[in-house]
Amino acid sequence: MKITNNGITSPKGFKAAGEHAGIKKAKKDLGIIYSEKPALCSAVFTKNVVKAAPLQLALKVLSENSYISAIAINSGNANACTGEQGYKDAVDTSKTLADCLGLKENEVLVSSTGVIGQLLDRDKIINGVKNTCKKLSSSQEAANDCANAIMTTDTIPKQITVETEIGGKTVIVSGIAKGSGMIHPNMATMLGFLTTDAAITKDMLDKAFKSRIDDSFNMITVDGETSTNDTCLILANGMAENPLIDKENDDFKLFEQAVDTVVKYLAKQIVMDGEGATKFLEVNIKGTATTDDARVLCKSILNSQLVKTAFFGKDANWGRILSAMGASGVNFNPEKVKITFKNKIGSIDLFENGTPYNFDEDFALKILDEREIQIDVKLNEGGKEITGWGCDLSYDYVKINAEYRT
Amino acid sequence: MKITNNGITSPKGFKAAGEHAGIKKAKKDLGIIYSEKPALCSAVFTKNVVKAAPLQLALKVLSENSYISAIAINSGNANACTGEQGYKDAVDTSKTLADCLGLKENEVLVSSTGVIGQLLDRDKIINGVKNTCKKLSSSQEAANDCANAIMTTDTIPKQITVETEIGGKTVIVSGIAKGSGMIHPNMATMLGFLTTDAAITKDMLDKAFKSRIDDSFNMITVDGETSTNDTCLILANGMAENPLIDKENDDFKLFEQAVDTVVKYLAKQIVMDGEGATKFLEVNIKGTATTDDARVLCKSILNSQLVKTAFFGKDANWGRILSAMGASGVNFNPEKVKITFKNKIGSIDLFENGTPYNFDEDFALKILDEREIQIDVKLNEGGKEITGWGCDLSYDYVKINAEYRT
Repeated sequence: MKITNNGITSPKGFKAAGEHAGIKKAKKDLGIIYSEKPALCSAVFTKNVVKAAPLQLALKVLSENSYISAIAINSGNANACTGEQGYKDAVDTSKTLADCLGLKENEVLVSSTGVIGQLLDRDKIINGVKNTCKKLSSSQEAANDCANAIMTTDTIPKQITVETEIGGKTVIVSGIAKGSGMIHPNMATMLGFLTTDAAITKDMLDKAFKSRIDDSFNMITVDGETSTNDTCLILANGMAENPLIDKENDDFKLFEQAVDTVVKYLAKQIVMDGEGATKFLEVNIKGTATTDDARVLCKSILNSQLVKTAFFGKDANWGRILSAMGASGVNFNPEKVKITFKNKIGSIDLFENGTPYNFDEDFALKILDEREIQIDVKLNEGGKEITGWGCDLSYDYVKINAEYRT
Repeated sequence: MKITNNGITSPKGFKAAGEHAGIKKAKKDLGIIYSEKPALCSAVFTKNVVKAAPLQLALKVLSENSYISAIAINSGNANACTGEQGYKDAVDTSKTLADCLGLKENEVLVSSTGVIGQLLDRDKIINGVKNTCKKLSSSQEAANDCANAIMTTDTIPKQITVETEIGGKTVIVSGIAKGSGMIHPNMATMLGFLTTDAAITKDMLDKAFKSRIDDSFNMITVDGETSTNDTCLILANGMAENPLIDKENDDFKLFEQAVDTVVKYLAKQIVMDGEGATKFLEVNIKGTATTDDARVLCKSILNSQLVKTAFFGKDANWGRILSAMGASGVNFNPEKVKITFKNKIGSIDLFENGTPYNFDEDFALKILDEREIQIDVKLNEGGKEITGWGCDLSYDYVKINAEYRT
C-alpha cells in the first residue's frame, strides 16, 4: 500500500475543480468532483433531525439511483434551515450542474457547508457552477483547488491518496475532507468525499465504507456538535478494471484497508485542525463489556469541557476523566479503572484500583507540554475496546465561534 | 410568602458556622449546619457512577436513619476518587463531628467539594471540624459564614429565606448553594443545603423536595458536566409546630411552594454565577409531545458549545439552536418550530414554518447586548413544556478551568 498526499483526481477517470463563486469574500468556495464513467455512490449523512436542503435532495436522488457522475460542493453557506426556497435553490444548482455536464438530474449531487439559516445567493452559485464546470481537470492542481474550495474555518486542506494492488491491477482510493468546529460522533465530518477506481458491487462498497466510517469519522469530536450538513460519500467508477469485488474475500479486505487508511487519516486531520485546538488527544478505551460501552465512554471523555480545558491548561487532571466516564451513563466499577497518559516523552500512570498515584507532576507536565497526547483507560469489565480522537478547548475556540456568523 | 436574603439559621432551632480550616490557602473552607432537634432529611445525590467518599458514606447513613442533626461541608477538596483512604477520611471526619456535638455517627453527614483525586489533609479537616463546632451560632453572621465556606470558584455566596404561614404558624424554609462549573441536569447543583422548621412526614418531605429539584437544579446547566459530588438535601426539624403535613393538602402545597421558591432562586443564582458567564439564558420549550422531550431539547440547547459561544458573541444565530435541537435525539418536525428571543428590550421572531425571518439585526443586537435573554421555542407537537436556565461560554470559562487544579 502506497500513501501519498495526492488529491481526488488520482484514481482513473476522475476530474475536479475549485473556484471562487463569490459566496465567500475572496477565498475559493465552490468545488466540483466529476467521474467520466457513472460511479457507484455510498453515502452517510448527519443523524441530526434538521437536515439541510442539499441533504434532503441527495437522499431523494440516492433513493432513485446509485450511480453518480458529479458533485458540486459550496462552502460559506450551508443552505440549512432555509425552507422551500432553500430546497428550490439546491434543485436549481443541481439542474445547472447536470446541464453543464450533459447529465441527468438524478446523476448529480450538491453539498453545502457554512453558515446556517441564510438563503444562498442564487446568481452566484449558479454562475459559479457554470464557470467551475469549465475548469474540470484531472490535474493534481485541480484536486488541490477542490480540497481548498470546501474549507470553512479549516486552516489547511485535507487530502490523501492510497494505492493498492487488487487482482494484479492498481486500485486507488483518494479522499478530501473539511472539518473544524461542529464535529461530533454521529457522522462526524462536516464533509468528506472519496473517489476510487475500484470495481466493486454496491453491497460491498456500502459494507466497506460504512464500517470504516464508524471507526474513524464517527470516533472523532471537536465540540460535541452534530451539524445539519454532515455528509461523507465515496464514488467508485470501476475504471481500475480489477476483478469485481462482490464478496468479503481477500480483495475486499485490501479495498477496505485502503478506505480505512483514507478515512482515519482524514478524521485525525480534522481533529488536529479543530477550531482553536492546541492539543491532539487520542483516547484508547480497553476492557469494556461491549463496544458500545467503549464508544460512549470514549466520547464522554473527549466531549467533556472540563477534560478539554484541563488539557489546554496542561493539567494532569485525571479526576475529570474519571468523572466524565462516570457521567456517561455506562455502568462500571471505578475501583477497577486504570488511567495512563503517554506520548513520545514517556508514560505515566495516574490512577489504579480506586486510588490515585502520587505521580511526578514535573514529568506529567513534560508529557502534557507536547501537542499529541494519548490517554489509555483500562476498565477490566470485559474484552472490548475502541479508539477515539479529540482536541482541547482553548480561548481561540470561543473566539472563532463567537465571531463566526457576524 | 415573605422572601429575604437571610441565611440557613432563620428557621427555628438551626445553628451554623463557617471557618478557615486550611484546606484552601486563605478563604473559609469548612461549614457546619446543626439542628437542635434531630431533623428529617431528604437528599438527592449525583447520578455519576463515580461517587465521592462523603456521598458513599451519606448513602449508607441515610439508608439506616432519616434523622440528621449536623452536616460538615468542606470546600477546596472533593475527596473524590480517593479510594479506601478517602472513605476512611470521610468516616473519621464524621466521627469527629458526632463526638464534638454529642451525637451518634449515624446522626451526622459530611460533604465535600473541590479538586478531585487528592487526599484530604486529615489533620486540617479534623482540627477544623473541632474548631468550627465551637463557633456554631443561630446568628445571621454565622449563616453567612457557612454560605461562604462552601464556595469554590463561586464569586458570590448564594442564600435565600422564605417565610410562609401554615395552619396559623410561621414556617421558614432557607437554603444555601454553591455552583460554578460542573453544573449539569443530573442533580445539577454541586451542593445545596436547605433548612426548615416545618413539621412534615418523611414521605411528604421527599415528595415536595424531589419534585421541586427536578424543575430547578435539574434544569440548569453551566457546562454539561455532572460532578462526582453533587448533593442537595433538606433538613426539617418540625420546630415551627405547624399541624403535621402528612398528605397532599393545601398545607403541603404551601410548603412545596416555599421549597420551590428557594430551589429555583438558588438554581438561577448558580447559573448567573457560572464560571466566566456573561449571559444568563432562560430557555422555554413549549408544545412538545412529552415533558421528557421538552427537557432533552432544553438541555441540548443550553449545553451546545456553538449556541453558548454565539450568545457570548451577541450573535442572533438561531440556526445553531435549531441544529442543537435536531441533534438531541428527540424527533420533531423542524418546519413547525418557531424561535423567538426576548427580554426587557423587546421581542424578535427569528424562525417560523421552516423559514428564517429577515429580522432587524440591529434590534437583535440590542436584545443580545443585555445580560438576561429569554429564548422561546415552540414546536407544535403537543402540549408539554419546560423551562431551563444556562449561560454562555466565554474566554473566562476556559481560563478558569485550564487553571483550576494547578
